[in-house]
Amino acid sequence: MARKTIVGIMGPGENATPEDNEIAFELGKAVAEHGWVILTGGRSFGVMDAAMKGAHEGNGLTIGVLPNDNSVNSSDNADIKILTGMGSARNMINVLSSHVIVVIGMAAGTASEVALALKSNKKVILLNQDEITIRFFKNIGTYKVMVSSSVSETIAMIKDYLSVYHVY
Amino acid sequence: MARKTIVGIMGPGENATPEDNEIAFELGKAVAEHGWVILTGGRSFGVMDAAMKGAHEGNGLTIGVLPNDNSVNSSDNADIKILTGMGSARNMINVLSSHVIVVIGMAAGTASEVALALKSNKKVILLNQDEITIRFFKNIGTYKVMVSSSVSETIAMIKDYLSVYHVY
Amino acid sequence: MARKTIVGIMGPGENATPEDNEIAFELGKAVAEHGWVILTGGRSFGVMDAAMKGAHEGNGLTIGVLPNDNSVNSSDNADIKILTGMGSARNMINVLSSHVIVVIGMAAGTASEVALALKSNKKVILLNQDEITIRFFKNIGTYKVMVSSSVSETIAMIKDYLSVYHVY
Amino acid sequence: MARKTIVGIMGPGENATPEDNEIAFELGKAVAEHGWVILTGGRSFGVMDAAMKGAHEGNGLTIGVLPNDNSVNSSDNADIKILTGMGSARNMINVLSSHVIVVIGMAAGTASEVALALKSNKKVILLNQDEITIRFFKNIGTYKVMVSSSVSETIAMIKDYLSVYHVY
Repeated sequence: MARKTIVGIMGPGENATPEDNEIAFELGKAVAEHGWVILTGGRSFGVMDAAMKGAHEGNGLTIGVLPNDNSVNSSDNADIKILTGMGSARNMINVLSSHVIVVIGMAAGTASEVALALKSNKKVILLNQDEITIRFFKNIGTYKVMVSSSVSETIAMIKDYLSVYHVY
Repeated sequence: MARKTIVGIMGPGENATPEDNEIAFELGKAVAEHGWVILTGGRSFGVMDAAMKGAHEGNGLTIGVLPNDNSVNSSDNADIKILTGMGSARNMINVLSSHVIVVIGMAAGTASEVALALKSNKKVILLNQDEITIRFFKNIGTYKVMVSSSVSETIAMIKDYLSVYHVY
Repeated sequence: MARKTIVGIMGPGENATPEDNEIAFELGKAVAEHGWVILTGGRSFGVMDAAMKGAHEGNGLTIGVLPNDNSVNSSDNADIKILTGMGSARNMINVLSSHVIVVIGMAAGTASEVALALKSNKKVILLNQDEITIRFFKNIGTYKVMVSSSVSETIAMIKDYLSVYHVY
Repeated sequence: MARKTIVGIMGPGENATPEDNEIAFELGKAVAEHGWVILTGGRSFGVMDAAMKGAHEGNGLTIGVLPNDNSVNSSDNADIKILTGMGSARNMINVLSSHVIVVIGMAAGTASEVALALKSNKKVILLNQDEITIRFFKNIGTYKVMVSSSVSETIAMIKDYLSVYHVY
């Protein structure tokens, strides 16, 4: 078995909008249907939970990297629970472990993931983001930041990226 | 899909003995055949690599939780690579994410995993350990430390533990 | 001796502008003259180094919380070096250990510190920032984000905050 | 100001014996009188608290590296509180940040610090330890482990080590 390709799907928990959750579900499903593993922050809320639910709809494997040292408030949709006990410092692990990162919705924790990803030279796809967010991250991340306006465009971007970089 | 049960197999990397590696391979295979996921420190050496190789022989899924922020020196036998960039502090994550921990062979990093596991109230099975090691960890871990002398006895202990604690 | 009050001064390393560094030096000096300890990311570049140099000009005590597991590339102006070996995940420690945080200049690592601070309900003072940055962080941090346009205004904000919250 | 030399004093919290605490107090005092900074796990119990109390008796500076993301249960004797929010993974930071480490008493958390120190090639002085503990750590740490039977012998060992290695 070769190393599995991991797509990180990041976004707000409790503060996700219904639209964020809907998009996360569709993206999780599409990512799973392409045979990629879905990694999220693992909590039972918002984008994390919705993306992993969608992944199961697409028969995918899901990993939740949790802030706590136990599984309280973790999503039932996380097949593999990585318990870090590190709080939001676990965001660094989410970012490093993902071959490519898609961000849906925005909040403080999510913003830290985008920033840590750019700091770590990871490719970040911003999906369903407002103009201020896009301009801010373009300013600090330049070519590492891509902007997508739909699930299908996002999937195409991931495919392109993986084919060029032969991620292993 | 329900949360997968994770068995952590810990032991030395470069300093593992051939006997450590042989036992790790057999244990990894047996753990996989029981449908449990194998988690190790993910490096391409010693007990970590042997356990995951064995797991693949048993058609199991393997997780490697790596000390580095990239996959250099990581094992080809790790299906899912969790990159932490935290050095040996990642040992805490190995321990917290495993439902039960088996330790084969001994070295400084391995000793830290046993100690962190006991601190976190995890059950630790010592396999193929010398008398001093057993007495030391019994002194600090009391009932949380179990001693096994074979792969089959270890599997029986894991089964017992999982059946009693309904680990979720 | 009571717990010392810690002011975190965060900002870019290699990518800091000369103006960022100048402001950081002045702020470090002023913070030290008020008897507060200065905490930075500890590296020998940019805002981190300049703030600690200024702190020494003001006879202050400086703490550098470093990403590496050794002191390579750490600033000679860090009196106390906390070695984390965690890479950018150490940004979380910078944020948690600071009673209040001032941010000068912007880059990916710095943005992660602001975001992690807001996620951790810390007060963040943005100094010498552009309009996009201010609007982005106001959107995700609301009342926790304050905007300052000078060193003296920043010191007044810190005083106010410490007097109200009786930080201990 | 040059980088301060940091002596880590590690040992049990709630489970420290009265003798452990007494020795920790005396060692903390002696370390402070030599102008070295004392670093501990920062909690308000056992060896950590006693060592920092002793350090204050010797007019020393104390650093507590805490497991929590707030100061609950932290020692009033910690002048500088580094809040990690990482639980026992913070033990790695204690070890990396100390130029030399003295261990008084034994428990699971303490054992993890000794093991992580040896893994990180740090010098560890075992003070007031039983025969099993000494033999176990000598087995895995060889020349990096030193055994001391008194506070004065410990101070002499630290002096020797610092003079040879020109720790900076």
